[in-house]
Amino acid sequence: MSAQIGVTGLAVMGANLARNLARNGFTVALHNRSVSRTDELLAKHGTEGDFVRTESLQELVDSLEKPRRVLIMVKAGAPVDSVVDQLVPLLEEGDIVIDAGNSHYEDTRRREAALAQKGLHFVGIGVSGGEEGALNGPSIMPGGSEESYRALGPLLEKISAHVDGKPCCAWIGTDGAGHFVKMVHNGIEYADMQVIGEAYDLLRSGAGLEPAEQAKVFSEWNKGELASFLIEITAEVLGHVDERTGKPFVDVVVDAAGQKGTGRWTVISGLELGSPVSGIAESVFARALSSKAAQRVEAQELLSGQEADISVGEDFVEDVRQALYASKLVSYAQGLDMLTGAADEYGWDLKLDEIASLWRGGCIIRAELLKEITKAYAAEQKPSNLLFAPAFTEAIAQALPAWRRVVATAVQLGIPVPVFSASLAYYDGLRRKRLPAALTQGLRDLFGAHTYQRVDTEGTFHTLWGEDQSEIAAVDSH
Amino acid sequence: MSAQIGVTGLAVMGANLARNLARNGFTVALHNRSVSRTDELLAKHGTEGDFVRTESLQELVDSLEKPRRVLIMVKAGAPVDSVVDQLVPLLEEGDIVIDAGNSHYEDTRRREAALAQKGLHFVGIGVSGGEEGALNGPSIMPGGSEESYRALGPLLEKISAHVDGKPCCAWIGTDGAGHFVKMVHNGIEYADMQVIGEAYDLLRSGAGLEPAEQAKVFSEWNKGELASFLIEITAEVLGHVDERTGKPFVDVVVDAAGQKGTGRWTVISGLELGSPVSGIAESVFARALSSKAAQRVEAQELLSGQEADISVGEDFVEDVRQALYASKLVSYAQGLDMLTGAADEYGWDLKLDEIASLWRGGCIIRAELLKEITKAYAAEQKPSNLLFAPAFTEAIAQALPAWRRVVATAVQLGIPVPVFSASLAYYDGLRRKRLPAALTQGLRDLFGAHTYQRVDTEGTFHTLWGEDQSEIAAVDSH
Repeated sequence: MSAQIGVTGLAVMGANLARNLARNGFTVALHNRSVSRTDELLAKHGTEGDFVRTESLQELVDSLEKPRRVLIMVKAGAPVDSVVDQLVPLLEEGDIVIDAGNSHYEDTRRREAALAQKGLHFVGIGVSGGEEGALNGPSIMPGGSEESYRALGPLLEKISAHVDGKPCCAWIGTDGAGHFVKMVHNGIEYADMQVIGEAYDLLRSGAGLEPAEQAKVFSEWNKGELASFLIEITAEVLGHVDERTGKPFVDVVVDAAGQKGTGRWTVISGLELGSPVSGIAESVFARALSSKAAQRVEAQELLSGQEADISVGEDFVEDVRQALYASKLVSYAQGLDMLTGAADEYGWDLKLDEIASLWRGGCIIRAELLKEITKAYAAEQKPSNLLFAPAFTEAIAQALPAWRRVVATAVQLGIPVPVFSASLAYYDGLRRKRLPAALTQGLRDLFGAHTYQRVDTEGTFHTLWGEDQSEIAAVDSH
Repeated sequence: MSAQIGVTGLAVMGANLARNLARNGFTVALHNRSVSRTDELLAKHGTEGDFVRTESLQELVDSLEKPRRVLIMVKAGAPVDSVVDQLVPLLEEGDIVIDAGNSHYEDTRRREAALAQKGLHFVGIGVSGGEEGALNGPSIMPGGSEESYRALGPLLEKISAHVDGKPCCAWIGTDGAGHFVKMVHNGIEYADMQVIGEAYDLLRSGAGLEPAEQAKVFSEWNKGELASFLIEITAEVLGHVDERTGKPFVDVVVDAAGQKGTGRWTVISGLELGSPVSGIAESVFARALSSKAAQRVEAQELLSGQEADISVGEDFVEDVRQALYASKLVSYAQGLDMLTGAADEYGWDLKLDEIASLWRGGCIIRAELLKEITKAYAAEQKPSNLLFAPAFTEAIAQALPAWRRVVATAVQLGIPVPVFSASLAYYDGLRRKRLPAALTQGLRDLFGAHTYQRVDTEGTFHTLWGEDQSEIAAVDSH
């Protein structure tokens, strides 16, 4: 019996994807560098479906129907190149090599181009949902050629999460598009988690709500417009009591957040694309700051607080909810703006409604909100910024007074809310009639002859600052 | 007569550096791809000193005393590689190739390593001060081997700016250190300009001060702790009246700020080093946002303001000054923290007192403040963060109440102050006893088994969230 897909790299994620495929009726050939892991999988889960045991990549390739589908799940970076290099000589024109790891989209673009030269398809797919999602239905973001998707899509759509009967998987775009979209998903996830953290901090330090009380608040919030996986598990984590000490779990965890790099990648791409992803950036920086252990110890001792003596009112919890929602909307707006920029830059025809839709299930940022976002981008008139979709323009206008109050209060109380405030600054910056960038341009022209444009006439100009301060037409070379 | 240094690439920056060298008594060999530019320079400024005219790189090289010093001033990127490739075969062991352009420090590291293989010195030098500085005394940040500095340093120190009799030039560190420090200088410059812009916007929209009135305010500020080149020229730009319309100049300039990339590079490096350079990032994003012309037009029409109905008091101008000063301190702290991180990462022995000192003259961020920063890092006990130096701990404590009031007011008035607020969030984040990063870690452990550490015991742990919620020891693999 030949297998429909092969999986190489059987650590938890690879094993779970293989099991998910087998459970869905596909025959899956298994390979791992050390055969013991393959045998372990077969021993534990071999009855879940049809597996083919192989001991070498050659055997793996030989066991597959054509065009062959080989899914690689190894550590991003050099290990992917290594496996690809070993596989390529064993494959035939039309075969499909799939990288399901967290690869950088530029690597995927490079690999896709190299394999295309050899008549092979290289498909980078973003998979979100962690180990549990991989097993029971992740959100899947496949890039690569449209042709490869015809051979691969049906399998992926079958094993993905489903919402309202629709698979959380759709062809994203050529070459690195899938990994790019997955990266932005992760950037939004960083911001999502940070705004939750800021809300928690405000409720704790501002309103004096203990974690157990907050668990109830978050559960309540999870019934409304904030309903989402992350809000749901926030309630769970805040409600959890440490078994050793009887203290709230959140109080015994070291407050230094780790990161694996995709948030940082998102910000770097935002910078390169000229997309102001300030909320996502602040959430990456918040993690970096939290990890500066030695400086934090010194700062606690040395730096003065000088907080204002104000107390929060009864409406504070609801205010915080609204501020959280508004800030979250901005993070999504910034992430989606990056996608628009990347589509232009890389020639991808990204369908934002489909992307929002496939994030509705399986992945970490799955949220009620994404239903409305899908609708916004399915409309005939696509908004050029998420915040311009009527539903969101309205929602943010309603939240705005509370948002302003919360940020102003946090600032007075000395509670850091970097993403709440960066998001508000983005919102106010975007809607502002005149920005001080005009002054920036004046300064740049004075010290570096960087030139400027005028509001009342076409052209590029330079003022002879050091001379008679007259204005001359200039070549726009800066 | 053999020349002491050769300059190839005679656009304004290269020509001005060559003239600066000649005016300081050095014999300078000149080369440009098109000889006409060389002749133009000689015709206009040939009497300023001793120049040697050459028509080819071979002639340039032949005209130099040994070890040869060849300064390249061409566009960063491929043009530098091209000139280096042409030069290398013409040179001898011990010769020095100098790249004075705005190259990325990674390129400089790569080129230095390649030329070192051939027994040649490659020196990347950061030059700040624009065209005027290049001619009359820039701030110079040379990297490369210490040996090369012995042959090159005396020339550079002679032509650099001087403050209190000290040259604004010192050996920074090996390979890319000079270009790295120059990049961070530019990142700080971005933030410096943005905080000035935010102050201007607050005084304009919050306090109703017209540009001409503000010119006086900034001139006044320039006499105190804010005294700096950028504050000085802000007064000049704000005081300038457009000759065509009679309006304030700043009102006729299009409010879309350009950027050439070094600010973006700084933020990318900060992200890579795990340095939370949020103020610098927000200043880069502010420029990006200002350039989103189409979205801004829509946003002005669609997005609601909902500003609070508050008015500012008499002290507002002074409050803004203090907020500007505090935010500026944070930008410097963030930039210098990056330098500390980079020193570790790249093995550079960066002397922050010398770096602060050489920024005191010639460059765009030159400021009174740098005298105090120099002192802070010259102390026996170096602060691990600029804000921990007693003088700055004290200064920021004094400014803090005003800083909080200003950000709270801006937020209520709908005036975007991204860097003021990001800097305050950084300050409050750094000094905070517990950050919500503990919750972040809990969430990451729940959905991705990313593990966490405990405040009360060594080790790495994971909670079995989906099972009996017990805690197990874990391998820290995430």
